Amino acid sequence: MTARDRRAEAGMTDSTDIVATAHLMADAARAAILPHFRARDLQSDNKRAAGFDPVTEADRAAERAMRAVLAERRPEDAIIGEEFGTEAGRSGISWILDPIDGTRAFICGATSWGVLIGVSDGSGMVYGLIDQPYTGERFEGGFGIARLTGPRGVEPLRTRTGVTLDQASLMTTFPEVGTVEEGAAFRRVAEKVQLTRYGLDCYAYALLALGQIDLVIEAGLQSYDIAGPLAVVQAAGGIVTDWQGGPAHQGGRVLAAASPEIHAAALDLLRG
Amino acid sequence: MTARDRRAEAGMTDSTDIVATAHLMADAARAAILPHFRARDLQSDNKRAAGFDPVTEADRAAERAMRAVLAERRPEDAIIGEEFGTEAGRSGISWILDPIDGTRAFICGATSWGVLIGVSDGSGMVYGLIDQPYTGERFEGGFGIARLTGPRGVEPLRTRTGVTLDQASLMTTFPEVGTVEEGAAFRRVAEKVQLTRYGLDCYAYALLALGQIDLVIEAGLQSYDIAGPLAVVQAAGGIVTDWQGGPAHQGGRVLAAASPEIHAAALDLLRG
Repeated sequence: MTARDRRAEAGMTDSTDIVATAHLMADAARAAILPHFRARDLQSDNKRAAGFDPVTEADRAAERAMRAVLAERRPEDAIIGEEFGTEAGRSGISWILDPIDGTRAFICGATSWGVLIGVSDGSGMVYGLIDQPYTGERFEGGFGIARLTGPRGVEPLRTRTGVTLDQASLMTTFPEVGTVEEGAAFRRVAEKVQLTRYGLDCYAYALLALGQIDLVIEAGLQSYDIAGPLAVVQAAGGIVTDWQGGPAHQGGRVLAAASPEIHAAALDLLRG
Repeated sequence: MTARDRRAEAGMTDSTDIVATAHLMADAARAAILPHFRARDLQSDNKRAAGFDPVTEADRAAERAMRAVLAERRPEDAIIGEEFGTEAGRSGISWILDPIDGTRAFICGATSWGVLIGVSDGSGMVYGLIDQPYTGERFEGGFGIARLTGPRGVEPLRTRTGVTLDQASLMTTFPEVGTVEEGAAFRRVAEKVQLTRYGLDCYAYALLALGQIDLVIEAGLQSYDIAGPLAVVQAAGGIVTDWQGGPAHQGGRVLAAASPEIHAAALDLLRG
């Protein structure tokens, strides 16, 4: 009898267990990361010698902590993690983990980084979570849930509607946005919106889900950068695709929009 | 007998009263602003029609609340505020107020905006405060104080030393950084540092004071944008000047650096 069968027998649905497990993982990641955040002796260690790719002890400690929760509670699930690679599973459920998305923000002491957890059932993302340990904000979506649990208690996540492209707020992380061609496509959208902001990392998707902004456009993403945010934004009513309107959960070029109207207008400009 | 004389008679030094007053003002601003932050019906109202200069009800309510504290506690001091202009005083002390620095961040739901309070005695800035109401962080400096009061309690503010320009982290708010010429000067520095981040508003100065980054370079500032941050950074051991090495408290082009070495290296590049 597998752990999954035991849970089913106990009357616990798998979605309930997935959500509970995700929260335990995010709690464990918080505990692993926070002692390192804004520490005076923070080093980004050996990867630094080979170019600038900051990876901190916090990053690794958090992914280890999340994998330990999965090993105990859901050993039959697959894991794809930024730091420690892929572990095959046999349940059909995969966990896609980015222990610290936004390591550059992290090493600057800014609070736009986050812990990302995405859950796929093989057909697509079914649940996701964006956690900001320092501000104590946890954005999650899937299985009928779309909520922020934070300093103000629990608030619903819902993307905003009725905003036209010329009234929209757009975010991306790097002003250059990938290649020269990708940057040019991005700027076609940026020129039409009211406001463009940079440097928000995964927090931009959280603000989209919270109904505060209208578009996030990025390029060069990995699957673990987008898996969790994609599920959160979709659960809040948003649309996340690649720049051709196709699936975005594998990463690459991502367009996340608050409404079908804003999505269509931005897609049109990205295609050129 | 003036209010000031009464305080002197009661044995309360003026610096103690200034700090206590600043905290009451920041508390009042928090209470005025937070109900508007991330509100679904947020409008940036009439200034919007005449170009994009978002000013919210929160901005005005916060400045009114701060002015009310001053009117009660220190009616003899001068006030320079972003929203309601200048009020002359006769004590020699001036309060420079920006109720919400980073209104664009504010209307996007990001947390890099802040309440700025600066105090000048006529010869220069003697005290400053940067408050982030949502994260509950208050950075202040002057009169021997240099501290962050926040979710972790009270922490000292101290800029970092021993970092060379090629290891430095640099922040600015807008990628274009003012005029074409100013942007070119900025990029001469950006090309030499390890990491450049955008979009942090006044929070960048707070991170500099906290020892997390090394440089903030901006152009086109108003006096109320820099008065408070300047005092905080200086109290933490940093150096704030214009791009020629002269005084920066009037705004314009600002260079804030963690150490004399970093300041000199950046100044050299800005001068071209």
